Amino acid sequence: MARGRFISLEGGEGVGKSTQVAALAAALEGRGLKVLVSREPGGSPGAEAIRKLLLEGEEGRWSPRAEALLFAAARADHCEKTIQPALAAGTWVLTDRFLDSSLAYQGEAAALGIEAVRDLHRFGSLDFVPDRTLVLQLPEAEAGARARSRDGHAGDRIGSRPPSYHAAVDAGFRAMAAKEPNRVKLIDASGNPATVTARLLYALGDLLP
Amino acid sequence: MARGRFISLEGGEGVGKSTQVAALAAALEGRGLKVLVSREPGGSPGAEAIRKLLLEGEEGRWSPRAEALLFAAARADHCEKTIQPALAAGTWVLTDRFLDSSLAYQGEAAALGIEAVRDLHRFGSLDFVPDRTLVLQLPEAEAGARARSRDGHAGDRIGSRPPSYHAAVDAGFRAMAAKEPNRVKLIDASGNPATVTARLLYALGDLLP
Ligand SMILES: Nc1ncnc2c1ncn2[C@@H]1O[C@H](COP(=O)(O)OP(=O)(O)OP(=O)(O)O)[C@@H](O)[C@H]1O
Ligand SMILES: Nc1ncnc2c1ncn2[C@@H]1O[C@H](COP(=O)(O)OP(=O)(O)OP(=O)(O)O)[C@@H](O)[C@H]1O
Ligand SMILES: [Mg+2]
Ligand SMILES: [Mg+2]
Repeated sequence: MARGRFISLEGGEGVGKSTQVAALAAALEGRGLKVLVSREPGGSPGAEAIRKLLLEGEEGRWSPRAEALLFAAARADHCEKTIQPALAAGTWVLTDRFLDSSLAYQGEAAALGIEAVRDLHRFGSLDFVPDRTLVLQLPEAEAGARARSRDGHAGDRIGSRPPSYHAAVDAGFRAMAAKEPNRVKLIDASGNPATVTARLLYALGDLLP
Repeated sequence: MARGRFISLEGGEGVGKSTQVAALAAALEGRGLKVLVSREPGGSPGAEAIRKLLLEGEEGRWSPRAEALLFAAARADHCEKTIQPALAAGTWVLTDRFLDSSLAYQGEAAALGIEAVRDLHRFGSLDFVPDRTLVLQLPEAEAGARARSRDGHAGDRIGSRPPSYHAAVDAGFRAMAAKEPNRVKLIDASGNPATVTARLLYALGDLLP
């Protein structure tokens, strides 16, 4: 049996990751593939328990360094318990966020350094990376408008962080696309959902059976 | 105001760490020092929440790598929220286990590598280390007998792990004493508690006011 493919969807808040993970899973299942949808932080019982620690309590409960270590621990568990067994069984895995979110948020925006955060992934998960990472890109105003139309407000995070923070996250994702152009593809997330899904499928063309 | 001193007590299961942390705290308070007793994993609200994740669930819930990352995250929080503020306020901090337990258990006994585990501490806590680390050493049979007389059995961990595991933990502690002889002192933990406390105080002689 052929090993499944491992695809991560990335991007800032409100760009349409969750919408597209679901749409892409349906499109791949329509082609006869077995697909597992997952997400980070979380995706396995241990990682979901760590997710609760990360998301509960006030903002600032964890220092950026402690937070990066918790993300790396959760990701190690997610890889070992959920992703790798599914791939071995021939299932494709689509995850809503993965390593590149840590590189962009903790490594670049929180200024811990992309290489230092990557080292945690080397340690925790032996640098296990997706076959393809699709980064949805949208002008920040448009992403804020999408999140607002969903939540009635721009979200705690979007609302409370300055534009420079979002620009740094975006710079982190673009740095990864420049560094690993074969793995990480920047995808225009504007237009209606079906248009965006078509762009994602196109960027997976070489991996599809 | 003089900064407080930071002392960690280390050693395998049942050697008398908790007994000696309490006795040493009393001895230091008797000399007029302000003393805070702490422990790992734990020692701050965030780190105690991580401790619960580490200790609940079956053995083997976490891979050694995920476990090492969780310990490093907890330690970062313990340092930042509890230890460093106390030292800055002139309080001495005695902790029941710290970094060297991770180096001995995850680095050496679980074979992740002492340097790799130290790198996690460099990342998480900027390599903040104790002024002195006192490693209690006792022949394994004697430690098992102490734990048995306390618990009625040798403890889950002592009972379920082979002698080679305990030997590796011990080798890890001895490696640290060889590498950092000024910080890490091996202390004979045999004899009655007061005798051991006297040895510990002697090994702190140069730090005492
Ligand atoms: N192509 C699109 N055009 C217009 N609206 C969209 C599009 N894609 C998603 N949306 C809407 O925008 C909002 C945000 O989308 P979604 O929740 O998928 O984003 P996300 O990237 O997962 O956000 P978060 O980072 O908050 O999880 C939702 O209300 C969704 O229905
Ligand atoms: N010097 C000593 N002589 C005899 N018994 C001792 C001595 N020190 C401690 N004990 C007893 O041995 C048992 C183990 O001691 P203690 O709990 O302090 O060890 P520990 O290193 O903290 O163990 P653990 O790793 O399980 O936390 C206890 O019952 C304690 O009262
Ligand atoms: Mg989402
Ligand atoms: Mg104890």
